[in-house]
Amino acid sequence: MIENKLCFDKEGLAAFLSDAFPVAARPALGELAFVKLNHVQLTLEPLPEMARPGNIVSGPALMALIDVAAYAVVLAHIGPVAMAVTHTINVAFLRACRWNTVVADARLIKLGKRLATVDVRLWQGPEEQLIAQSTVGYALP
Amino acid sequence: MIENKLCFDKEGLAAFLSDAFPVAARPALGELAFVKLNHVQLTLEPLPEMARPGNIVSGPALMALIDVAAYAVVLAHIGPVAMAVTHTINVAFLRACRWNTVVADARLIKLGKRLATVDVRLWQGPEEQLIAQSTVGYALP
Amino acid sequence: MIENKLCFDKEGLAAFLSDAFPVAARPALGELAFVKLNHVQLTLEPLPEMARPGNIVSGPALMALIDVAAYAVVLAHIGPVAMAVTHTINVAFLRACRWNTVVADARLIKLGKRLATVDVRLWQGPEEQLIAQSTVGYALP
Amino acid sequence: MIENKLCFDKEGLAAFLSDAFPVAARPALGELAFVKLNHVQLTLEPLPEMARPGNIVSGPALMALIDVAAYAVVLAHIGPVAMAVTHTINVAFLRACRWNTVVADARLIKLGKRLATVDVRLWQGPEEQLIAQSTVGYALP
Repeated sequence: MIENKLCFDKEGLAAFLSDAFPVAARPALGELAFVKLNHVQLTLEPLPEMARPGNIVSGPALMALIDVAAYAVVLAHIGPVAMAVTHTINVAFLRACRWNTVVADARLIKLGKRLATVDVRLWQGPEEQLIAQSTVGYALP
Repeated sequence: MIENKLCFDKEGLAAFLSDAFPVAARPALGELAFVKLNHVQLTLEPLPEMARPGNIVSGPALMALIDVAAYAVVLAHIGPVAMAVTHTINVAFLRACRWNTVVADARLIKLGKRLATVDVRLWQGPEEQLIAQSTVGYALP
Repeated sequence: MIENKLCFDKEGLAAFLSDAFPVAARPALGELAFVKLNHVQLTLEPLPEMARPGNIVSGPALMALIDVAAYAVVLAHIGPVAMAVTHTINVAFLRACRWNTVVADARLIKLGKRLATVDVRLWQGPEEQLIAQSTVGYALP
Repeated sequence: MIENKLCFDKEGLAAFLSDAFPVAARPALGELAFVKLNHVQLTLEPLPEMARPGNIVSGPALMALIDVAAYAVVLAHIGPVAMAVTHTINVAFLRACRWNTVVADARLIKLGKRLATVDVRLWQGPEEQLIAQSTVGYALP
């Protein structure tokens, strides 16, 4: 097995992601917390347009966060040249997401030549009380 | 089998959906095209913040559209009282989504007591060239 | 778009599938009912080892049927040379499967160069009362 | 949060599983390796009918193993009274499964009143080289 290697540090990846998305989309993307081998973490502060009845964060806002977290950990290991697109995504929503900071934890579980697979988990407060678990497949160029 | 029945017509469902989402979120939700038994269709005109490199519509924008289309067909059959939350979502992205109108076609494949399952398909132009297929589970109250 | 073409008729595909699986596995694979463009149907008579409490057919037996139905419709369009392997599978189980004939209906929703995506539905009796809906991704060689 | 508790030890769970499945189905179900809080592990020795071209273990055999591992970890925490049925399953196949012992590692990520969600991973040899990752939803009675 060829071992994975990091192609970006946190600052480099943050700058690349900031350039890759339109300005209007950036606030919804969260902030990089750290970039490690096979493992990237982001945090998101909910925005007004993410509110749903009961003062919870909307499912689509969480899906967008999952997608950007998966994208970030893939990019961190394939570098700035390549373009990756979401190929499949599966999300299990486990608990309502309250109006607090959301942690998005993305682990690269397979980086193949044509496809990368990422396990993304969301939580608030204790890590063992997951809000959502997601498996994301990214098609590589 | 108890047969499903429509609880909303198009105008009623549109009004309910418009009230259910914050004003800032509404433009991204698309417009109801029709409401039929077990079948709802929406159309979306892409917004600037949905743009991704190559002038395509972002995956999260499509996931949000899938989610609202599934929600709409569920609500159309359970009525305005009940609150439903996304429980699981699985999306296969099949083709890039170009910068044109997107059709979201949602069919209720099972309305149970506790869970509803919806098949959502997105296309542009010919229906047989799908952009995405999704299976969405909604938990009922 | 390059249009899909059939590479096998029903007899050819049945013979190929029969050769491709070990003798011990064949009874669980069902029988081809028809082979059409983008559309293959199989039927399965439940076997004793598929029984679960309540006289229902087991989930894994249904998953195996879904997998072979998806494989059959992919093979029907890529021909005998190529080897395809299941890449992702998502199944929503909607109703218990009673101890009767099961229909497995597989439609090719995208045949790409590297991946094929298939929608598989299982039913018994009326088609609108689905037992399961599945989306299967096959990796092509 | 009400904390999960074990209702079975390894011997008790093995005996219950052995009774729950027909004799013809048991060899394909693997052996319990351990039963811990929120965590059960099984091992499977491949059987002849699981063979596929290239001397690999078939996808459906792996799906059946995933399903029984998820069932085992759910049962371990809800006890012998209740009946649980697979509700949704999503599998990402990451590497071919060679003709050796397969480890199935199942972790309960949410035990709710009506639904349990389990993360199941398969490997051979080093744990970090996954064969498959799966998210399984079980409906509780």
